[in-house]
Amino acid sequence: MVPPTALIPIPAQLTSRSGAFVLTAATQLTAPDILRSQAELLRDQLRPATGLPLAIAASARGACISLALDASLARLGDEGYRLEVTPDEVSIHASRATGIIHASQTLRQLLPTAIFRRAPVSGVAWAIPSVEIEDRPRFAWRGSHLDVGRHFMPKEFVLKHLDLLALHKLNVFHWHLTEDQGWRIEIKKYPRLTEVGAWRKDSMTAPRTKDPTLRKFAGKPHGGFYTQDDVREVVRYAAERGITVLPEIEMPGHAMAAIAAYPELGNTGKPIEVLTYWGITDHVLGVGDNVLRFFEDVFDEVLELFPSKFIHVGGDECPKVEWRQTPAAQARIKSEGLKDEDELQSWFIRHFDSWLARRGRRLVGWDEILEGGLAPGATVMSWRGEQGGIAAAKAGHDVVMAPQKPTYLDHSQTELPTEPAGIGGHNSLEDVYAYEPVPKELNGEGARHVLGAQGQIWTEYMPDPKRVEYMAWPRLTALAEVLWSPPETRDFASFKSRLEMHLERLAILDVNYRGRFRPPD
Amino acid sequence: MVPPTALIPIPAQLTSRSGAFVLTAATQLTAPDILRSQAELLRDQLRPATGLPLAIAASARGACISLALDASLARLGDEGYRLEVTPDEVSIHASRATGIIHASQTLRQLLPTAIFRRAPVSGVAWAIPSVEIEDRPRFAWRGSHLDVGRHFMPKEFVLKHLDLLALHKLNVFHWHLTEDQGWRIEIKKYPRLTEVGAWRKDSMTAPRTKDPTLRKFAGKPHGGFYTQDDVREVVRYAAERGITVLPEIEMPGHAMAAIAAYPELGNTGKPIEVLTYWGITDHVLGVGDNVLRFFEDVFDEVLELFPSKFIHVGGDECPKVEWRQTPAAQARIKSEGLKDEDELQSWFIRHFDSWLARRGRRLVGWDEILEGGLAPGATVMSWRGEQGGIAAAKAGHDVVMAPQKPTYLDHSQTELPTEPAGIGGHNSLEDVYAYEPVPKELNGEGARHVLGAQGQIWTEYMPDPKRVEYMAWPRLTALAEVLWSPPETRDFASFKSRLEMHLERLAILDVNYRGRFRPPD
Repeated sequence: MVPPTALIPIPAQLTSRSGAFVLTAATQLTAPDILRSQAELLRDQLRPATGLPLAIAASARGACISLALDASLARLGDEGYRLEVTPDEVSIHASRATGIIHASQTLRQLLPTAIFRRAPVSGVAWAIPSVEIEDRPRFAWRGSHLDVGRHFMPKEFVLKHLDLLALHKLNVFHWHLTEDQGWRIEIKKYPRLTEVGAWRKDSMTAPRTKDPTLRKFAGKPHGGFYTQDDVREVVRYAAERGITVLPEIEMPGHAMAAIAAYPELGNTGKPIEVLTYWGITDHVLGVGDNVLRFFEDVFDEVLELFPSKFIHVGGDECPKVEWRQTPAAQARIKSEGLKDEDELQSWFIRHFDSWLARRGRRLVGWDEILEGGLAPGATVMSWRGEQGGIAAAKAGHDVVMAPQKPTYLDHSQTELPTEPAGIGGHNSLEDVYAYEPVPKELNGEGARHVLGAQGQIWTEYMPDPKRVEYMAWPRLTALAEVLWSPPETRDFASFKSRLEMHLERLAILDVNYRGRFRPPD
Repeated sequence: MVPPTALIPIPAQLTSRSGAFVLTAATQLTAPDILRSQAELLRDQLRPATGLPLAIAASARGACISLALDASLARLGDEGYRLEVTPDEVSIHASRATGIIHASQTLRQLLPTAIFRRAPVSGVAWAIPSVEIEDRPRFAWRGSHLDVGRHFMPKEFVLKHLDLLALHKLNVFHWHLTEDQGWRIEIKKYPRLTEVGAWRKDSMTAPRTKDPTLRKFAGKPHGGFYTQDDVREVVRYAAERGITVLPEIEMPGHAMAAIAAYPELGNTGKPIEVLTYWGITDHVLGVGDNVLRFFEDVFDEVLELFPSKFIHVGGDECPKVEWRQTPAAQARIKSEGLKDEDELQSWFIRHFDSWLARRGRRLVGWDEILEGGLAPGATVMSWRGEQGGIAAAKAGHDVVMAPQKPTYLDHSQTELPTEPAGIGGHNSLEDVYAYEPVPKELNGEGARHVLGAQGQIWTEYMPDPKRVEYMAWPRLTALAEVLWSPPETRDFASFKSRLEMHLERLAILDVNYRGRFRPPD
């Protein structure tokens, strides 16, 4: 039997009892019609390895796993749940469907790790230890960011990543869809965004260098994109697992792939190519009405695809070189009564802040959107340390913490020379586990503006899914616990010991976490 | 509604009627207990995209998809089935469960391509055109070979590949598990096989060269292996989909990874490393009793894991250099009364032929096992053209056709300079579709010895799953039709036109088939 102490993340309250519930061919799932799809998902998670039918019924006859909505559990919030296992029954209650989904993940972790196999396993007793759990997350925003611009990641990997987020009760998938190096989402009105913008001639490889003469390249083209039907599939798949997909369309910097497709979006009108190396370039969007209309059209399609309340517009790393040199940009500064190019960027972001607000959405941007004045409805994602987040929260804005130290998962996990070469920096598993999303500088109202945090996966030096998994895991496991569990339960030694069994689960799921395989040298 | 003419492979008999059956929330699956798991698999294939509950019941109430065993369909063989769709009912009959599995794949292809999505799709009418189909395969052995020795392929990719084989009614997965460049299957008695043999320091990259001074390398270590539990999962997953997994343990050549792990298996006793480049080397297994016992131990574990009647022992490309120079090998030739080193290889293979036969299994080997005398129970896999297969079939042995032209899918699909660099050679989609597995030289009894054929995926120049998919598809689609459909239905123009819709299916399944994405240049 699996010790309940191997759960990740730790539930808010857990009491162990004696005895266990054992899944058998007679075990039924019972659920009201309104929880039918949650019951089906749970069955799909339990059936492949057990080979048991786990019929779904409206009411129980004998041993069952019962799902139910219970308004009295509103005290546990939108995502909380109650899970009770006795030798006779497993009962899952929550005030909303999302709680049922999280409880199902806890239930999976209470079973032997073989439950994660995709075909029947012989000789395993499918016992669930008797427990009483009441659980709820500490933060509402528990995110995983993935950059598919630098390296395109296949849809199948995105779906697998969503399964892993669900397993860890992470609930926001931040999909960084556009970059200098590639535009990854089909936009019907502007087909060249993917016909041209999704492809580049080559890709820079490690080691990182800022000296153009020292750059090395893979020597082959790279690209790919998601059709709108693919995006719908990903969004629905995520929603079924309690995850919101946050799309990011980068502007006004990091948009060279769009400019390569439609040169009139730039400042010079001159043709450029989709970028093949990493870093920050001077080529940014122009500020003409045509650019605003173009991206409004893009967002029209994006809003149709993504029900997320939040929409990310990037806003980071936008050099002002071209705007200083471009008469149209200077004219815009004058006509709008702006002080300088910083305010011009702020004007640009404010435009989309109010455009999105009129459509019932809220803008999110990286912390550079503070420069030149923060748009009134904006939520800030604080990546250059915590100061941007602190300032925004103090000013009454919502904040998502994403500081490079320790939430940038493109930094290496150890300082060993055997780590794959990458972007530099170092965030250990222990660093991530020790992270406290609410800075000391914030309390009361300011602290409440910290919605949560997320782990960032920038893929300059991650050419394929297996490398992404190497960098992401198990650090995202640590972050999941930081964001879900009560802070007083935080204990790295306990985490490390629980992680052992959890890594078995990840290995069965064929996750290439750091440490799974080790070459003999 | 999907035209029934888009089916791949073509059914033996198809009659279209008017009208259609439409899946709704009321649609039930009915199946006797003995077909319960086939019903569950079908539900798992229909539910994600439709979002419909598709409850499974023992008997029908209203509109249903019914599965049933019917002894009178024994005339359609072990894999044949009858599928009848009317506006009121879908009925699937077969004499064995495998036929039900194949019929389910046909049913999926009769639905709109969106049925292959993994989350609910809005706005699609899930209509199945009325048809009467009676179907059975032309050949019993319809295979796909995958070399995971040259490049390790993650378990998740193997499972996906099995799903694709099932979609194409291919029924043998030939898993090439050991090579000079890597040993990929955990053997409990000999842990160094994977601790040492599964890892190499580097990997040769394209372009191919036989000049050691011109070889280029990736510059990073490579490796990986499957645990025995992983293997069990793959084998069961395949079996649920009507697919037999044929394991290959290479001997006496292509075994350097094993020798690197246990130098006493070689002829020199000297330590060697797991090979980092491609080709044929002089380092082969020794012929001492210790080597026979070692591989008997290995096969003891392999037979436990793989229920397949057939077991592949390799037998190809074994240079005799070391045996000529090794006193122990020369002594074995003398003591066994053998003529030369060719007969020594034959003696080696015969040993395992009879060892396997005593355990109720049958040995398969590449066509070099003909040299020096074919072992009495051996089945020959004919790869160096068809002559080996013809000779073996005439001598009364069973044969599986795997000739380089046109079943080697590591050869490029076109002669365009834009194809990724690889091993050389060229087998077009049309070549594969035109392939006739029974050579003109064989008829009657000889022709009956041709069990079927298979496509070979050697991965020297396929470093990852996406490259494998690029090389495999859609050529395996063409081969599937060759091996399943009646030869009189063969028509490349028809295939090409049906392929269009089929590629939509493959794109939805995120298969990187050749032609799916095209960079602009």
